[in-house]
Amino acid sequence: MRSDDRVFRVGLLGHGTVGSAFAELLPKEARRIELLTGLRPELAGIVTTSSGSFEQVLDGSDLIVELIGGLDPARDWVLRAIRAGRHVVTANKQLLSQYGEELWEAARHHGVQLRFEGAVAGVVPVIRVLQESLAGARIDRVHGIVNGTTNFILTEMARTGATFEEALVEAQRLGYAEADPSEDVDGRDAAAKMAILARLAFDTPVHLDQVRYEGIEHVQPADLEYARELGLELKLIGTAERIGDGLSVRVHPIFLYPGHPLASVSGPFNAVTVESEAITEITMSGPGAGGPQTASAVLGDVISAMIPPASTPPTSQELRIVEDVVSSFYLHLEVADEPGVLAQVAHVLAGDAVSVKSVVQKGLGEQARLVMVLHPVLESRFGAAVKEIARLEFLRAPPRAIRVLEEEFS
Amino acid sequence: MRSDDRVFRVGLLGHGTVGSAFAELLPKEARRIELLTGLRPELAGIVTTSSGSFEQVLDGSDLIVELIGGLDPARDWVLRAIRAGRHVVTANKQLLSQYGEELWEAARHHGVQLRFEGAVAGVVPVIRVLQESLAGARIDRVHGIVNGTTNFILTEMARTGATFEEALVEAQRLGYAEADPSEDVDGRDAAAKMAILARLAFDTPVHLDQVRYEGIEHVQPADLEYARELGLELKLIGTAERIGDGLSVRVHPIFLYPGHPLASVSGPFNAVTVESEAITEITMSGPGAGGPQTASAVLGDVISAMIPPASTPPTSQELRIVEDVVSSFYLHLEVADEPGVLAQVAHVLAGDAVSVKSVVQKGLGEQARLVMVLHPVLESRFGAAVKEIARLEFLRAPPRAIRVLEEEFS
Repeated sequence: MRSDDRVFRVGLLGHGTVGSAFAELLPKEARRIELLTGLRPELAGIVTTSSGSFEQVLDGSDLIVELIGGLDPARDWVLRAIRAGRHVVTANKQLLSQYGEELWEAARHHGVQLRFEGAVAGVVPVIRVLQESLAGARIDRVHGIVNGTTNFILTEMARTGATFEEALVEAQRLGYAEADPSEDVDGRDAAAKMAILARLAFDTPVHLDQVRYEGIEHVQPADLEYARELGLELKLIGTAERIGDGLSVRVHPIFLYPGHPLASVSGPFNAVTVESEAITEITMSGPGAGGPQTASAVLGDVISAMIPPASTPPTSQELRIVEDVVSSFYLHLEVADEPGVLAQVAHVLAGDAVSVKSVVQKGLGEQARLVMVLHPVLESRFGAAVKEIARLEFLRAPPRAIRVLEEEFS
Repeated sequence: MRSDDRVFRVGLLGHGTVGSAFAELLPKEARRIELLTGLRPELAGIVTTSSGSFEQVLDGSDLIVELIGGLDPARDWVLRAIRAGRHVVTANKQLLSQYGEELWEAARHHGVQLRFEGAVAGVVPVIRVLQESLAGARIDRVHGIVNGTTNFILTEMARTGATFEEALVEAQRLGYAEADPSEDVDGRDAAAKMAILARLAFDTPVHLDQVRYEGIEHVQPADLEYARELGLELKLIGTAERIGDGLSVRVHPIFLYPGHPLASVSGPFNAVTVESEAITEITMSGPGAGGPQTASAVLGDVISAMIPPASTPPTSQELRIVEDVVSSFYLHLEVADEPGVLAQVAHVLAGDAVSVKSVVQKGLGEQARLVMVLHPVLESRFGAAVKEIARLEFLRAPPRAIRVLEEEFS
């Protein structure tokens, strides 16, 4: 089937939210991927349960992306792809949490890659980190917010005082919850993801049925009121932890004290904390779901299968180094306590078109100072103004400037 | 030289803080790594600038770990190892930020892996994530707290009102700053790390000399006082961002608004945020430096070089699944507003050896409720108590329990 050695054919199973986002992303990034890998990725075909021929697409593909979801026909098709010697990338948490051992064994036996970053926490790279970065660490515990729907609902309930039902409707309106949200809100979706994480973190087979889980349907506004009074955050937390020579894997709503790395994760975001004596803890966070995000995680897996491990490809050298950028500044001036000081400083700033956002005069006499925050400005322009200000004779010390990171000005 | 096919020989260059931590970690984890990879890792020898023969260790090694630091002889030895067909793992940020292109080109040419997770942000897996997980994403910006010494000093200054000099002495006392801290505090260390991150994120060669940097030596307690008043955090931030068709890479102290993912990173921790339109943003955080942590990152790289990519090894099946665990609970009871209610509930709890940490009686009449937090207890025991409480006749609704994550009780 290979007509061109420089083409890498990707067969796609499934064309739902993630599948169609992936089918859109692949051609968009094809040129960049070709620069990176030396191979041009192409969609070899799309199969759904109602259209296309699996055999035909398998035959014409170097790698199969499974985004069809569920167990049937996903399990059969993934197994057949592996047995045909194809690398497989999947985002199917149900499949892996129930038939993972069978699939991993098949992949080892046939010497192919089975990648599944998109199955847990979307683009948050927790699978790769557990499988590779932390392969050298004895892990004690994994805590995760691995369901964006429930995290959004709990954040809404805390923010607005809404009931569970009201917040769920809002989540559905914004696309953070499906029409049938039961597997998300009852904790089963998070349980499947925790089964996969526990398998990787603790080298122990964990089946979805072995994960105890509880959802957030019974959480009341009064519980979040209590949390607010005590400064706690209520989250649906998945836990996998070593207990003696055993392993506990579970999902529950949990109150977190402020300062816990997961306490500040809000809205539809996901986050996972991995604890180990050797490394203390690592936390990773980011958008947990959504078509484009999961498709991006899937594409990362596809590219990884295309390049040799740990290769740093030649650069495409597309970007020149920029010296001068736009920044917002805090400017601290120790000044003589006399009239006209602010006017003169303001005059200099205006001359360089540096505009003042806020200014505070502080202290008296020997302690007098001006503290200003300036609107975003080219750093070269700001530097010129500061040089001029430094020459003003009422300055008691050199001006001191520190950048301020505004939300989004660049 | 290979006497046993099941042995994987690791030659170690350097025996400083990280080198000796690695030399200690490898034999400790050897058995687990053998279960994982099928190969038993062994130290083939240690070379320092003053002892050992590089040629001899190279000859007897399957992989070289370079932790000697600096440019000479690190550059020469790494190049010779690559040319001899050995995989190389290094944590040398100076080397990579100045001679990275030469080394990566050599590694590509000789078909070996050159891994360097330990060079940036210790065990925070930012290198792997940029090279692999995010290979499919067009990155717009990378923000990082990539120097633990300066982050510790700024955290101390903010916390205690200390001057820079005082906080530096404290950092040195605790081992977070070296005797000669100049490359840390003047921003050059962070600049080298940002050069490496920028190279990976933007496919553009970036040399340390192209990174503008500024340190924290001039930060005054007054600046942190200002930050406290406005709820800002002052951090030394490395930035690499796309600006039009250009790239800016720089390191500066910056005030962050609360809510920024890096604002809550304190003490010697490191964190990196990667922004991209497709993925919104990912943040990774963890301990940035320290011998054992960096050694753990290095070992993760070594193991990655030992196993085929994306393999999920057979499980060692060492852990049994634990059903009953110790948790701390919040218990919400809607009760009749009558005397003796608290006494009866307390009696039931005491009978199951569940001990009360705090209790609040709220509301009157139809709104009366008891909100309690209990000390950590086996969940089965707590469940038994709740079952009994549910039968008390003054309860107006079923009891509602939510777990509370305490600092460290398990």
